[in-house]
Amino acid sequence: MERTLTKETIKKIGQDVLLKGWVNSRRDHGKIVFIDLRDRSGIIQVVGDEKLRQLRPEWVVEIKGLVKERPANMVNPNLTTGKVEVELKEIKVLAKAEELPFDTGTETLNVELPTLLDYRGLTLRHPKVKAIFKVQEEIVDSFRQALKDLDFTEFQAPTIVPVATEGGSEIFPIQYFDHKAYLGQSPQLYKQMMVGVYERVFAVARAYRAEPSVTTRHICEYISLDAEFGFIDSYQEIMAVVEKVIRGMFAGLSKNCAEELAEYGAKIPQLATKIPQIKMREAQEIIFKRTGRDNRREPDLMPDDEKEICQWSLEEKGSELIFVTHYPTKKRPFYTFPDPEDPEYTLSFDLLGKGLEWVTGGQRINDYAKLVENIKARGNKPEDFQLYLQAFKYGMPPEGGFALGAERMTMQILDLSNIREASLFPRDMERIDFKLAKLKTTSADKETREKSKRN
Amino acid sequence: MERTLTKETIKKIGQDVLLKGWVNSRRDHGKIVFIDLRDRSGIIQVVGDEKLRQLRPEWVVEIKGLVKERPANMVNPNLTTGKVEVELKEIKVLAKAEELPFDTGTETLNVELPTLLDYRGLTLRHPKVKAIFKVQEEIVDSFRQALKDLDFTEFQAPTIVPVATEGGSEIFPIQYFDHKAYLGQSPQLYKQMMVGVYERVFAVARAYRAEPSVTTRHICEYISLDAEFGFIDSYQEIMAVVEKVIRGMFAGLSKNCAEELAEYGAKIPQLATKIPQIKMREAQEIIFKRTGRDNRREPDLMPDDEKEICQWSLEEKGSELIFVTHYPTKKRPFYTFPDPEDPEYTLSFDLLGKGLEWVTGGQRINDYAKLVENIKARGNKPEDFQLYLQAFKYGMPPEGGFALGAERMTMQILDLSNIREASLFPRDMERIDFKLAKLKTTSADKETREKSKRN
Repeated sequence: MERTLTKETIKKIGQDVLLKGWVNSRRDHGKIVFIDLRDRSGIIQVVGDEKLRQLRPEWVVEIKGLVKERPANMVNPNLTTGKVEVELKEIKVLAKAEELPFDTGTETLNVELPTLLDYRGLTLRHPKVKAIFKVQEEIVDSFRQALKDLDFTEFQAPTIVPVATEGGSEIFPIQYFDHKAYLGQSPQLYKQMMVGVYERVFAVARAYRAEPSVTTRHICEYISLDAEFGFIDSYQEIMAVVEKVIRGMFAGLSKNCAEELAEYGAKIPQLATKIPQIKMREAQEIIFKRTGRDNRREPDLMPDDEKEICQWSLEEKGSELIFVTHYPTKKRPFYTFPDPEDPEYTLSFDLLGKGLEWVTGGQRINDYAKLVENIKARGNKPEDFQLYLQAFKYGMPPEGGFALGAERMTMQILDLSNIREASLFPRDMERIDFKLAKLKTTSADKETREKSKRN
Repeated sequence: MERTLTKETIKKIGQDVLLKGWVNSRRDHGKIVFIDLRDRSGIIQVVGDEKLRQLRPEWVVEIKGLVKERPANMVNPNLTTGKVEVELKEIKVLAKAEELPFDTGTETLNVELPTLLDYRGLTLRHPKVKAIFKVQEEIVDSFRQALKDLDFTEFQAPTIVPVATEGGSEIFPIQYFDHKAYLGQSPQLYKQMMVGVYERVFAVARAYRAEPSVTTRHICEYISLDAEFGFIDSYQEIMAVVEKVIRGMFAGLSKNCAEELAEYGAKIPQLATKIPQIKMREAQEIIFKRTGRDNRREPDLMPDDEKEICQWSLEEKGSELIFVTHYPTKKRPFYTFPDPEDPEYTLSFDLLGKGLEWVTGGQRINDYAKLVENIKARGNKPEDFQLYLQAFKYGMPPEGGFALGAERMTMQILDLSNIREASLFPRDMERIDFKLAKLKTTSADKETREKSKRN
């Protein structure tokens, strides 16, 4: 008999089916026993007798049974398959499971973050947890699709880099044969080089930050969604592409992740006809007028300022997202294009939403001599950037681009309280799969630690 | 005026257009000057006067001109736009380029491999070089699409791992705060865990091998296309999915990369109605009969054997690809499923083509106790695999999967002689973007090298 997915049972009332999946939970009602069977498509209730009583959560089973309509008063409106149940005929256990360390059959998984991560191989199976990564898959997919629709080429960015080009403190060193190498902090320099090749490029890249503190917003390895393109007439074109991509992502999420969003009570952010723009200094002025908080001489928006300007945008412009432009030249990387009308500020932007940065981007300097000058002015060596600089030495059009973190976007869409929930296997200062403290218990690891201290 | 892409000119005969791109090459014929203008869509010939003579290769320009049909005897059949040319009206230089270190205007780029890589920011622009990575993009895309059509979920595999689970010699150590961590050699353990979550999963992952020798077939960072799925009845189902995916990839390449394949004179490998299968021991027997080479007691196919069995497959089965199954248990990883009928051999396979491995895969052990036993038997510690083992401790269906390297497939499809040509920015023992020897010249790097020697 061909396998039937649980979600397909509603189309097979009165038929015998073969189901395969995990026991999500079991409920005993005297002689009658119920299980919720979970497969990749969802959950269905199976009703039976003693034969079901042996089952335990997470056992893997094959079930043959008859699909029956439930009586009206037994319909479960919270379940896609809630109008039917399967009456057990035969059962075959494919794999048993040991007793679970906590109850996973509840609607929300009631465990603290360390437990959620210590048991990642188990907790990811919970319907509400796995929903997070369906949303993330859609974020990546719709990012990709929106850019392909605009004739962008996807490339695979490398992760091992030869030099710590963006400064050394938050970068992971690798022992690379007899050399030292590093994990790239972003695919920035590579995507700019690729503009010389395909004009319009994007990457679903890996990026690494040796973030030396444990916050709710930072992880050490993340998915960087990066785009870059050439032949722009103005930095406005970059924001126009960001807007198209964000709208494409929102449309994809609405279309393909309605159930997952509903599980979190999450709503797609409200956008105006056009996402509003404001210069950073204007934003500070507005914040001062609204709150009396005078950050008008700060070189960046403070966290409270970001919240306030998002609030202003929603109230005054009807948009939960807002572009803040013209950050100070000093605070942006060496390749950022200064505003010709006021070179102390740049043609760069952040897209803010719900008080946080969603996207960052801007126009880049495409003049070789100016890039060399800036690299030197910041105390770096042009030879460390040789491949990157080639791309400009040998003719680069006016260009720019943007980047967003997939985990951060996932977190913001679903209103998660910690970015670790939005990473399948989050790496931070204290954890790679398990708490790193545990590494200290073995002698081999002690030795490693001592050696790395000597370094 | 709106920009016209070069490939669109053939639909705009008699119209004025605005083109943007790079000077691919310039030819002076007395007072008449020609340039080939290159943009992301292709190349077009522009004809003009003195104004074009100032241009140099790789300068970035905007050109306004009139699209004219070429006289019949001037048509260039090798160019998509070969029936037309653009008569120059106005020109604007967007960016100049320094003099090129070699001629890039030739049909094939005539440089040796070190030069190809030393000037990657420039050489990638050559139409024949950039074609390689359009093919690679399609390989990745069609892999993804074939699996999505089979209801697989894409996940993002982590690259930093806590333990050198597959042995220590070919792994890169990372200095991870006060700990030692590593770059993962494959997403294998994570994709198996993900079967417990979504049943069917795949990843476009990064994998790392500290390959201590410089060969034409190995690079240190590569793109691993990985798939894994549960609820299989037999390892045959895994090969059936491999075959569907390979056919999907071939169809995608035929459809979307015809021009790129033609540039390399590459043909999609010939397949039989069903890809043939043969056990490793049977293959050795056939090879012995065909060549007199007696490798019948070897635990693996030798490189010459792989060539010979591919030749046999083509001659006898009409298929350039062939599955070789049942590799010895001792030679395969701890999780490989032994054949119940002959436990010294495994339910694993390689897909071979043109004498090389294209795909490797197999059924996995899904029994927790057996996995723990195997990990111990190979001298490893189960606690180093704790997250992985959880997935089996808490119920895992019979499952299996496969993996292929995107660079290797690119290389084989285009018959490239070195895998470095199939990697945008290849990393090997001697090179990360540039030759690592150069690192030795700075004192900071000397210090690093000495420290790493002490380790």
